[in-house]
Amino acid sequence: MPTDTTQPRKARGPLNGVDTPTLFATLDAVKGQPELAKFQFRARNRWKTGTMSETTIDTFFGAGGEHAHKTTFKVQADHPNVLVGEDRSPLPVEYLLHALASCIMGGIGNIAAARGVTLTEVEARIEGDIDLLGILGLSNDVRNGYGGIRASFSIKGDAPPEKLQEIVEQSRARSAVFDVLTNGVPVSLSVNAG
Amino acid sequence: MPTDTTQPRKARGPLNGVDTPTLFATLDAVKGQPELAKFQFRARNRWKTGTMSETTIDTFFGAGGEHAHKTTFKVQADHPNVLVGEDRSPLPVEYLLHALASCIMGGIGNIAAARGVTLTEVEARIEGDIDLLGILGLSNDVRNGYGGIRASFSIKGDAPPEKLQEIVEQSRARSAVFDVLTNGVPVSLSVNAG
Repeated sequence: MPTDTTQPRKARGPLNGVDTPTLFATLDAVKGQPELAKFQFRARNRWKTGTMSETTIDTFFGAGGEHAHKTTFKVQADHPNVLVGEDRSPLPVEYLLHALASCIMGGIGNIAAARGVTLTEVEARIEGDIDLLGILGLSNDVRNGYGGIRASFSIKGDAPPEKLQEIVEQSRARSAVFDVLTNGVPVSLSVNAG
Repeated sequence: MPTDTTQPRKARGPLNGVDTPTLFATLDAVKGQPELAKFQFRARNRWKTGTMSETTIDTFFGAGGEHAHKTTFKVQADHPNVLVGEDRSPLPVEYLLHALASCIMGGIGNIAAARGVTLTEVEARIEGDIDLLGILGLSNDVRNGYGGIRASFSIKGDAPPEKLQEIVEQSRARSAVFDVLTNGVPVSLSVNAG
């Protein structure tokens, strides 16, 4: 969800479906009161059967208070048959690729609007390679997760190719998911059993 | 999608919705032919409007060949109003929490079945703290992504608390998403503009 404060602002109306006046007003509000920038996101997951589970996403904290999403979102995950699941939903590791693509894509929408560029088409293809010898416990030399991820973006709009390229680059540079995936994050886990 | 090869196997039928005979047959097949463990997962994302985009997930490579999911999965992402989106879908950073929870949860299903434990209820609550001063470009000292993530699991089944706790721990220890989030992964990005 990156935005962009490195370019001069012009007074503009909404563009690319982004309400730029609100975007700039938000930036000004946070500049004056930095504690508004502290957010907490949450998910509750419930095991259904086999490799399938469902996550409920409804509330978050930010901008100084509690918020409820407009809708209570439910998302499932499962394994495909070849990984002993029933293929009812995408895999958890496929959701990682979705998170990465959609984070950079949301930023591209915001940044293009802030720079006065109208987008016509933006697409991303993401691939991740994983050797399951790690997960299956068959090799101690192979990590559990992806060994590498490749993302390729194609972007079209009413600006020269260099400017369009810069928009993608700025979005990557301010992407929360890109940061977490490339730099890692501390995760603590507790268990209440029985 | 962790499984568990550290415990002695007993001949067992399906449990917890997990087809354990197939699970063990898969492990044996991969032991004999380790290149079957090489997988590639993929996602294609398309910008829709504003901060909203949609990801299509349909094919993957693994077990020596190409596979198509039973269904072509479509998942959306958006920002909530307070982050200048229209709140039509979960945020990309919320999908990260879903990926983490569902990865460990799928492993719990498999590992419990392999250990002959019948699960009755498993839930996870995940929270991630993020300071948007990073993303908004208002501080160079604040990272773009989560500063920390906390996961708390509660698990019930027909085994003593220590054994249930071990199942969660083994799943965490073999989770692809836990590995990627805590250790990071190289991500390369290319852009085709104009």
